[in-house]
Order: sequence, then C-alpha cells, then structure tokens
Amino acid sequence: MTPDRAYAELLVHLRQMALVESTLEVLAWDELTLMPDAATEHRGSQLAHLAGWHHDLAASPRIDDWLAAVELSPLVADPHSAAAVNVREARRQHQRLSRLPRSLVEELARVTTAAQHEWKLARAASDFKHFEPWLAAIITLKREQALCLAEAGPLYDPLLAEYEAGLRTADVAAILEVLRSELTSLLWEVLEMQARAQAASPPGLRGHFPDAAQRQLCRSLAEQLGFDFRRGQLDTAVHPFSTHLGPHDIRMAIRCNECDLRESLYALLHETGHALYDQGLPSEHFGTPAGDAISLGVHESQARLWEISVGKSRGFWRFLLPQLTAAFPAPAGADSNLVWREVNRVQPGVQRVGADEVTYNLHIVLRFELEQALLSRELPTADLPAAWNERQQALLSVRPASDREGCLQDGHWAAGMFGYFPTYTIGNVLAGQLFERAAAELGNLEDQFAAGDFRPLREWLAVHVYRHGKRLTTAELCQGVCGRGLDPAVLIGGLRRKHTALWGS
Amino acid sequence: MTPDRAYAELLVHLRQMALVESTLEVLAWDELTLMPDAATEHRGSQLAHLAGWHHDLAASPRIDDWLAAVELSPLVADPHSAAAVNVREARRQHQRLSRLPRSLVEELARVTTAAQHEWKLARAASDFKHFEPWLAAIITLKREQALCLAEAGPLYDPLLAEYEAGLRTADVAAILEVLRSELTSLLWEVLEMQARAQAASPPGLRGHFPDAAQRQLCRSLAEQLGFDFRRGQLDTAVHPFSTHLGPHDIRMAIRCNECDLRESLYALLHETGHALYDQGLPSEHFGTPAGDAISLGVHESQARLWEISVGKSRGFWRFLLPQLTAAFPAPAGADSNLVWREVNRVQPGVQRVGADEVTYNLHIVLRFELEQALLSRELPTADLPAAWNERQQALLSVRPASDREGCLQDGHWAAGMFGYFPTYTIGNVLAGQLFERAAAELGNLEDQFAAGDFRPLREWLAVHVYRHGKRLTTAELCQGVCGRGLDPAVLIGGLRRKHTALWGS
Repeated sequence: MTPDRAYAELLVHLRQMALVESTLEVLAWDELTLMPDAATEHRGSQLAHLAGWHHDLAASPRIDDWLAAVELSPLVADPHSAAAVNVREARRQHQRLSRLPRSLVEELARVTTAAQHEWKLARAASDFKHFEPWLAAIITLKREQALCLAEAGPLYDPLLAEYEAGLRTADVAAILEVLRSELTSLLWEVLEMQARAQAASPPGLRGHFPDAAQRQLCRSLAEQLGFDFRRGQLDTAVHPFSTHLGPHDIRMAIRCNECDLRESLYALLHETGHALYDQGLPSEHFGTPAGDAISLGVHESQARLWEISVGKSRGFWRFLLPQLTAAFPAPAGADSNLVWREVNRVQPGVQRVGADEVTYNLHIVLRFELEQALLSRELPTADLPAAWNERQQALLSVRPASDREGCLQDGHWAAGMFGYFPTYTIGNVLAGQLFERAAAELGNLEDQFAAGDFRPLREWLAVHVYRHGKRLTTAELCQGVCGRGLDPAVLIGGLRRKHTALWGS
Repeated sequence: MTPDRAYAELLVHLRQMALVESTLEVLAWDELTLMPDAATEHRGSQLAHLAGWHHDLAASPRIDDWLAAVELSPLVADPHSAAAVNVREARRQHQRLSRLPRSLVEELARVTTAAQHEWKLARAASDFKHFEPWLAAIITLKREQALCLAEAGPLYDPLLAEYEAGLRTADVAAILEVLRSELTSLLWEVLEMQARAQAASPPGLRGHFPDAAQRQLCRSLAEQLGFDFRRGQLDTAVHPFSTHLGPHDIRMAIRCNECDLRESLYALLHETGHALYDQGLPSEHFGTPAGDAISLGVHESQARLWEISVGKSRGFWRFLLPQLTAAFPAPAGADSNLVWREVNRVQPGVQRVGADEVTYNLHIVLRFELEQALLSRELPTADLPAAWNERQQALLSVRPASDREGCLQDGHWAAGMFGYFPTYTIGNVLAGQLFERAAAELGNLEDQFAAGDFRPLREWLAVHVYRHGKRLTTAELCQGVCGRGLDPAVLIGGLRRKHTALWGS
C-alpha cells in the first residue's frame, strides 16, 4: 500500500472513531442534563455497547498496517505537520488501547454509569457506605486497566497518561510538593493580611438572584467573552461542565444558586474557557488528533485562565459590575474594588469546587495522595472517609462535617477518573505561565477587560494554543510560548503579588 | 445448535440492535430539541454511521442460522408467546433489511438529516425551489429502497409496510375512498348546522397565555392523565413529538403559542397518548418485538384517542376548565359547553396539524395521492406546489396562499417518510373503534373524565393494547377487541352523532 493511500484510509478510520466518540459524548451530555434517573441502567448498556464498538475500531489490526506503511515515509517528515501528528498520536492511542480487553472497556462504561447514579444517592444521603461497594468495584477495574497498560514504574502512571500524555507520577509529585510547601506558608500570610485589611467586606454577590435572570446574564457574558452561540449552547445541570459534541456543537452547562451569584458566574467563566478552546480548534481537522485539544491539563489551563486570571481581575469587575447592577435590583455594596476583594478572599474550606486560588491546589494534593493509596490498596476503601478527613485537617486545618462534604464531594472516582485530578494543577500552573506571557505581550490587559475588550487575549490564545490542535505537546507549548517548562513558581509569584495588592497597606 | 441456545443468542443480538436504535433516537431527539443548527452536518454523519452499523447487525447472516434453528421447534409452538412473536418479527425484519445495501441505509440517514435542515430553511422562506433538489434526491433514494424491497404490487407497498406491516396500498385506498366520500358530505352538513347554531362563539382559548404557565399546565395535565415523570419528561421543540429512548425514558415535546392555548394543549394530549402506550409496553421485553408497539398506525390510534376522543369530549372540558381558569387570568367566555363547541368547530383549512376531525382525513387523502405520484415520477417534483394547491382546492375548497402553507407544511418527506401519512388515518379509524368499545364496557366515560378519573380508560387500554407488545397484529387487535376489522364507518357514525349533539337543535 502506498503511504498516501494508507494515510487516507487511516484518516477515514480515525474519523469514524470520532463519530462514535462524539455519539458517546451526546449520551453522556444527555445523562448529565436531562435524562430521567430511571433510565440509568439502559443508558449504561448503551454506553457500554458503544464503548465496546469504539474499542474494536481503536484496536483494529488494520491500524497497524496503515501506520507501518506511512511511518517512515516523507509524508511525516515534518514533525509538526498534521500528518505527522496524526500518525504519532494514532500510534500512541493504538498501542494503549490494543492492550485493553474489550470486556474491560464495556464493563468500565457500564459500572461507572451505574456508580455515578449511586454516588449521587450516597452524596444526597451523606452515606459513604452506600457508595463503597461501587468504589471498590471501580478500583478493581482501574487496577486491571493499569496493569494492562503498565510499562515500568508505578501503576498510577498509565492512568495519568490517559489524561496527560508523557506526565509521570514523579513529575506531578514534584510540582505538588512545591505547591504544598509554598502555598501553605502563603496561606497563613494572606490570612493575616486579610485580617488586618478588612473592616467588614460587603456581601455584594450574595442576596437573592432569580434563576432566570442569572441565566440571562451568563448567556450575555459568554457572548461578550466570545462564545459563538451559533456553534454551541448553554444549559443547566447539577454539575457545571462543557463538552465538544462535534466541530460546531460545543455545549456548556452551569448551575445557578439563587443565594450566591458567584456559583453560576465562575462556572460560566470556567466553562467558557473550555468552550473557547474547543471552538478555536481547527474544525477542518475534527476527528483527528490535529484537530483535538493537546491534553486535559492544557484544556484546564484555558478554563482556569478565564475563570481566575480574567474573572478575578480588577479590570473584569470594572466591566461586569454595571451589568450586574442592571440585571438585579441593587446588589448591596456594589463597588468594583470591594467585589474584586470579595471574589479573591482566601478562606480555607472543605470544598474543592469554589476554593480560592491559594488553597485550591492543596485540595488536589489530598486527592492525588488518596487515589494512589486506593489504587495500590494501601488504603482500604472502608478507611477512605477517615483518611480524607485527617488529611484535610492536616493540609487546611478544616475538617468535613460529613461524608457529603468530605470524600463524597467529587464525582470523578465514580466516573472512573483516577489520575484526572492532577490535570487541575497542571492547568493552574500553565494558566499562570500563559497569562503572564500574554500580559507581557498585550499591554494593559486590566484596562482591556474593563472596557469589555476580550478579543486581544482571545486572539492571542487562538494563535498560541487553540489553532495548533495536538501539533504541539504540553511541554512544547509551554517551552515555546513561555520560554521554559511547567514551573509552579510563576503561579506562586503571581499569587503573592496579587494578594499583596489586594490586602497590603 | 439447540433451539434454546439459538433463541438466547438471537435475543442478545436483538437487544444489541435495540441499543443502537435507541442511541439513534437520542441523537434524533437532541437534534429536534436542542442541537445548534451548525451541527447538522456532523449529526448527519453520526446518524449515517450508526445507521450503517445497525444495518450490519440487522442483516447479519447469523440471524438466519439462529432463526433456522428455532423456527420449527416447540419453543415457538404457541403463536402468541413472546418467543414466537420475536422469531416471527425477527424473520420479517431480517428479510426486509437484508435486501437493502448498507450504502443506501447510510445515504438515506445522511441525506434526510441535511434535507430536514434545508426544509426548515425553505419553509421559513416559503420557497419550495430551495427544497426541491433535496426532495428529488430523497425520492431517488426511496425508489431505490422500494425497488430493493418490492415483491409483487405497487412500489408504494413496501414503504407502507415499513410503518404498518401487512397493509397494502389497495387497503389504504379503499379506506380513504370511503372517508373521502362520507366526510365530504358530512362536512357540508356540519358547516350548515354550525352556521344555524352559532350566534358568536366566545374565543375562550385565545388571548394571551404566557409560555411558562402553559408549560406548567401541560405538565400537570400529563401527570393527571397518567404520564409517569419518573420515567420520562416533557420538553419544548419546534414541532411536537414523542420518542421512546429506553424502557424507562419516554420523552414528549410540545410547542407553546402564547396567543392560542389549543396548540400546546392538543399537542400535549396527542403526545401523552403516544407516551402512555410506550410507558405501558412490557419493559422486561424492551429491545425485542414482544416489548415493542404493534405498528405506527396503532401508535397513532393511541395518540388520537387521547387527543380527540378524550380531549374533545364534553366531560374533559368540565374537568379542565377550572384548572385553566386558575392558571390564567380570566380566559374570556369560560363556559365548558362553549369551549367544548369551540374545540370541535369544523373549519376547512390548509393545515393538517390542528385540523378538525371532519377534515383531517381529507388532508391525508391529498398526501397519499401526491406521494404515490411523486414516487412513481408521474408527478415531477417541480409540479408539486401546483398539484398540491389544486388538489387542496378540490378536496376542501381552500387554497394555500404560499408554499409554506401548502406543500412545505409537513416535514415527513424531508425525513424520508414516504408511506407514513396513511398511518394517521389508520390511527383515526382504530381510535374510533377502540373508544366505542371502551365506552360500551366502562360505563359513563364522560362523567369519569369530568371527575378527572382517567384511570379506567388507561387501564382498559393497558389490558387491551399496551401490555401485548407485538404479540397481536393490528388486525388481531382490532378483531379481538372490537369484533371486526378496521372499519371507517364507526368513525363516521361517531362524528355524525357528536356534531348533531354539538350543533343540532
């Protein structure tokens, strides 16, 4: 077979796989937004069946033939060409997925669909015991998956690689150790500064904000940030998320809390960050690696950049507050500097979602440690609540009052997502580095935000991140744009400067 | 292979096919309710790919082997057992579908997805020319499909059989001829009675009815009729529909017109009729014919029974009017007898949807004639608007003012549904016969409806229709319950009695 022919057939095959993947995403989207609970079992069967079919396609030996015919050809000579990227990534994916038995893939889809439903029930009842057998079943399956995929090194490595290719347990541990040490000391400094600075901060973003008006404000904000509603939409769900159902079908979901506007606003900013990335990917390459996001860590960096670097800036609040005051009857204490302080207030708590920037990564430290211990079976599932609460106390000096506030707060493990949490930290670190670079190149971003002008930042991201698809790796992106590899020092330095400005005399 | 083993493997295969079918339904549901327009092309690719996969399963030669091993065995000795029904229907489906090339199945899915989008644009612009090439492409594909499936008899026969097994073009023609003749003369009688009877009928159901309040009223009404919201939901869409996404996932969609409450109310009644049937099917047989509806004609009978026989009865309006008066500020002319007259008023018009009972089937006569002529190519697609308008004038003495009100009003042809329209008439005829029988057995239904007691009728339908799945054919159902075959005389007799009661002195 000629290399051209082999490559063309490979692309058709990859695009067929993407049709199945995006159908799986539609089923998952529906499950999270609208599906009645009673349909959970059938949905699990649908997902399992499609996952099995997808696996047959992904593990097909024909991929080997096509790759062998093209890998040494001139077609892939330029390592950053779409062809080279597609071939390289297809090889990596094929190697990984061929090692997994179809039965395991199906079973994981079925069990995690049911487990997510049971987790919801357990969480509502704050009853970890109800969830424990499901967690145990998932750990058994994830161990089997890791054993199938493992090369040298820890069992956790291949699970990490599912979300962030090339990242190893030791890399994450090193980054998190720096963050743990630096953020812990920064935390107490900031708390002291805050205590000195504040008389009483006005509530401002708390009060009563009717659901419909919040949704309208969020829709308008997404539009102003650059989300294209012709190619996507905004819905509500129990947990905020965004998903990429097709080249022109990017959907976000938020939830509204009528007593606290911050929930929907920051979820919207976060999901818009994800969605802008997806809408900015080269749609002509949809269904192939050249049209896909680099990694979940990079995806998260885009979400955190808009949520934090933009949404917690002083300029952003100069821009948003008038709209907010127009949308709701007289929010108390409507001064943009005061609101800016409020949204940046540091407060150690038991929840990861909504945690401030200083404590957020300490929540990741907790999960990173515990999920390794669960996976290695050093930590029996029955001991998880106690271990969680103790570690939480040690890291943040707070203790969950219940399982619901403790180890049942996140749905990731119920969804089989072991190795996912570190991508949040990678995202935070990279967002800090990218934003520092953008600020250096684009002039006064604060003034641009204050004027509602988000286009320069969005276009900078399009040029440096979105349009590349997977043509760059995370490391290449970071090195190329920021001049060095992932480095938590930038994040920490930025936090220190910001909080000194916020609370210093 | 033993018959038991063969049957067990066949069932697993049928259920896998149902997983793919129900996934296709999710994609279609999403397309109709929420999907952004820009996603149409990708959705078409997804649907085509899944339809192709489904076709591979449906045409698999293994089905032949299983059927051969079980067809003469004692397992299927009782012709009304689940096993016999499943084997009989699997044979019928397999025979049909094995004759279709996969490429045709995929192409139909892709073209009809795009065509439905183009039809919407054409309809909005009232521009048949825009839609004509798509209609021509679909006719070519449907001709190919019919030629693959044809036995003796007209090309239209196998398309009809897709929706109503065993029904032939000649059967439909005979029923429609009776209806055409009888309804045309009834129409002029009723119009005369109406003219004599009415001073001025108060509007009552027209005025201003806010969207949110309509949706709330419809939700409450569906609940009172017996729809189980734990196993389904109610959404809004451009066109009302209902769909069966899984054994416990039945979804309805309605649309609200703030100036005319009848649109949402009658759509809700219609879709609830469909949904009650789906929720009443034996869920333990989901994914096999024993758990599936008999036919689209029978499905439609259930919709029309609730929409018309229940929803246009005097008792129903004694029940509903107080709720309506509570939900909306003072609807004008709120007297249940006057509203009852209003919803039954006969008025020849250009629209099928929302047409009164007397003229409805004349709209079907029009479509039945024209779709045969299009399929045989006696009628060139370019001549459709003129042919439509002339035939409409001849049948109902009204003439559409535009393509939008004329041949672009229905989306069925854009969806490839040639042979579907007659199922509306089968449904109307059967609904009339079933309701007459239920009324004879259940005592005073009008009083039960007035008291909001729909349970006796619902349970009667569950016993006689819902619980059987496909164990009965349409003919067996009608003969068994009503003591004779499909007979339009019952519908016509009922209409004559009702309108005499409504308008007679």
